[in-house]
Amino acid sequence: MERTMDLCRELFVKLRKNELHDGDKVFLEGWVRGNRDNGSVGFIEFNDGTCFKNVQLVYTNETTGYEAISHFKYAASISVKGSIKLTPENKQPFEILVEEAAVLGDVSDDYPLQKKRHSFEFLRDIAYLRPRANTFNALYRVRNKLAFAIHLFFQERGFMYVHTPIITGNDAEGAGQCFKVVEDLKNPTEFFNANSCLTVSGQLHVEPFALAFRDTYTFGPTFRAEHSNTSRHASEFWMIEPEIAFADLEDDMNLMEEFLKFIINYVLTNCPDEMNFFNTMIEKGVIDKMNAILNSSFKRMTYTEAIEILDKAAKNGKKFEYNNIFWGMDLQSEHERYITEEVVKGPVFLINYPKEIKSFYMKLNSDNKTVAACDLLVPGVGEICGGSQREDNYDLLKTRMDEQGNTEILEWYLNLRKYGGCIHSGFGLGFDRLLMYLTGLSNIRDVQPYPRTPGSLKY
Amino acid sequence: MERTMDLCRELFVKLRKNELHDGDKVFLEGWVRGNRDNGSVGFIEFNDGTCFKNVQLVYTNETTGYEAISHFKYAASISVKGSIKLTPENKQPFEILVEEAAVLGDVSDDYPLQKKRHSFEFLRDIAYLRPRANTFNALYRVRNKLAFAIHLFFQERGFMYVHTPIITGNDAEGAGQCFKVVEDLKNPTEFFNANSCLTVSGQLHVEPFALAFRDTYTFGPTFRAEHSNTSRHASEFWMIEPEIAFADLEDDMNLMEEFLKFIINYVLTNCPDEMNFFNTMIEKGVIDKMNAILNSSFKRMTYTEAIEILDKAAKNGKKFEYNNIFWGMDLQSEHERYITEEVVKGPVFLINYPKEIKSFYMKLNSDNKTVAACDLLVPGVGEICGGSQREDNYDLLKTRMDEQGNTEILEWYLNLRKYGGCIHSGFGLGFDRLLMYLTGLSNIRDVQPYPRTPGSLKY
Repeated sequence: MERTMDLCRELFVKLRKNELHDGDKVFLEGWVRGNRDNGSVGFIEFNDGTCFKNVQLVYTNETTGYEAISHFKYAASISVKGSIKLTPENKQPFEILVEEAAVLGDVSDDYPLQKKRHSFEFLRDIAYLRPRANTFNALYRVRNKLAFAIHLFFQERGFMYVHTPIITGNDAEGAGQCFKVVEDLKNPTEFFNANSCLTVSGQLHVEPFALAFRDTYTFGPTFRAEHSNTSRHASEFWMIEPEIAFADLEDDMNLMEEFLKFIINYVLTNCPDEMNFFNTMIEKGVIDKMNAILNSSFKRMTYTEAIEILDKAAKNGKKFEYNNIFWGMDLQSEHERYITEEVVKGPVFLINYPKEIKSFYMKLNSDNKTVAACDLLVPGVGEICGGSQREDNYDLLKTRMDEQGNTEILEWYLNLRKYGGCIHSGFGLGFDRLLMYLTGLSNIRDVQPYPRTPGSLKY
Repeated sequence: MERTMDLCRELFVKLRKNELHDGDKVFLEGWVRGNRDNGSVGFIEFNDGTCFKNVQLVYTNETTGYEAISHFKYAASISVKGSIKLTPENKQPFEILVEEAAVLGDVSDDYPLQKKRHSFEFLRDIAYLRPRANTFNALYRVRNKLAFAIHLFFQERGFMYVHTPIITGNDAEGAGQCFKVVEDLKNPTEFFNANSCLTVSGQLHVEPFALAFRDTYTFGPTFRAEHSNTSRHASEFWMIEPEIAFADLEDDMNLMEEFLKFIINYVLTNCPDEMNFFNTMIEKGVIDKMNAILNSSFKRMTYTEAIEILDKAAKNGKKFEYNNIFWGMDLQSEHERYITEEVVKGPVFLINYPKEIKSFYMKLNSDNKTVAACDLLVPGVGEICGGSQREDNYDLLKTRMDEQGNTEILEWYLNLRKYGGCIHSGFGLGFDRLLMYLTGLSNIRDVQPYPRTPGSLKY
């Protein structure tokens, strides 16, 4: 068998180019997404997986095998020979008049999906079938394009993609929420002759590459053994972590802004049908929200300014759940959203955070109190990603590492500062949360193919 | 600081376009890869990480700061202002006449790399510095381009990229060589309320997506808890696994051939300097070897034919280490190489293997003895990748799964055969071994950023 049959995607491309004509013969294989028949004429909603839109097949009681075709079941896989009929006046711009059709794979009666809306909870439980449901079909298409957009952005700019390791001996953030990786539960350090865990970030491992290739990025899975059963936490998720040499915090923020705009624009341009679906069915206005990002210039505000604004707002009657505003506090989502939604009314980088609430590797500012870190806040979410200039001074970094007790295991990381080091910066962006933001889906379990969360590992 | 300085890569691009002129001012930041000075004129081999080739900086005893510049250390990071001098008659097509230069990050005396050849064993031990060594600099550049070529190939053809899960409850191949993933060593099933391990393959998880999107692929890390201390085994490695619906074994082999040729051609075209380096320094003739693949039409031979040929050869005096040739045996690398190098003299798919030596999910042929599996054999390596048509018959698959005792945990996988299933196929290709093949590097530890092997987890 040569795979010379037609694809739905190609039919739509031909249509756009005015290369689809009445009477064109087609041979398609795909799935029944609906079948209704009024006794003389019948319609099959057909999809072969190559585009989001369905194609309409039309058959009549004079079509060969009419009786069988009219009983084609929802979700059956079928092959169809037929001819094109352009229908520019209809909702569907063309139909396929069926000449011959056959079932390739039938559907048993216990099939759990029906042609109706199912709850997301129900669909989560059948993760292996939900790619066939409209929302998830659209979602995984956007996920695919978004992943490619990320590579495209960096590759066009000469960045080097680095596969940082998944199994690692150190816990980059010092958060202590690593899964352990062992061959033998009774001898956990035997296989690697070391403590081994799943990575929480590729950053520390990509820095040596930035110091050889200048512009680098990782894009891979990361893990957290957190017992957080929220709609925004998963135990396994993909992260994008660029690391750039000869670049300070300002360069880093410029890169974040350019990157975010590029990938949003790429998805809007390459997934118009899917984004229209999300705009209609999941979050009204999500396309406008994305266009607002594209059309805005990202502002900068220091953490200190933000605290002053929040404190003033609280004193003037603004009710926050956490109403005790003080310099040195970790901002809550409500505070971030107030700043981006009500004060700035657009994307804003908060910069120069107190060193106590940020990671050991961030560059200490000359005030000795804050670090050259930034969080990007956007309306509707709050923080969407964060970055920093890295501490490039050997002595300052060693002091911070000694305080945290990780100097020994990360000596190589420290050494980078005395072997031709330079100013360098980077950021981290959670891929799955970005996808939630882009589509309006509100649970991280609904944007991943097979989500892993505490107590949940069905597939 | 705006990142408006020049890049070495851009200078070479300008040169090719005849847009680089004598006297053009440049401002570069990068690393010293060599510095020699004869008292009146000095030369710095300079590299900013943006291309494989170095750029030559020239200074004289009349250059401002001559004394300091002449002492710039190997591997120091520096900034340079200067002007272009075209030198078409020289080995370097242009030089940069230094006007001003400064050290950004110096190098302490314990720096372990020197401007000389180090052994690969030594460099493995300083994995965080070896991207700066020529071989590894070239290698990671090819690795980057190869990874992108893979996405490009599939994306241009409408394939959907699926992030199959890393943590999984099942062992796809039944090989029993999974690492366990636990939060608490004493309660290993507590976190997920299930046995949890690291994936050995994304195939089973991507099949449901092929049955919704037709053409799909995974490209991600996979793991083996094998105590194999060989040059070809790593505990962590990346795999490419396409899965295509409405496609039989022949379609699968056509895809493998098209894919392999595309990515080889992409690397030869986009990494000419790096491939010349490997061709000269690592494996003489590797470029010819790759061109031979591009120019060959991949043959097909059944396993049964191969056994007959091997048996005849053995009887006619060909000495194999495993000289006992019989139908049903697993072929050794020496047998595969004999077939591809001495019999076919080019790439060949061996097809239709005995079902006993292949996986449970492979399509049983009508002879009831063999399965529709293929291994692609290439000269110099033997097997480079393998694929199969999948068993789409519910009853046949259930019988195989019952035999292996995995019906219960993989019931969802079996169900795909009764919910609108179809003929589908796929293959798996180890990314790191492919990179070994392309570059001539003979140890998998030398093609990964931070290799993980038994007893080795330094970084």
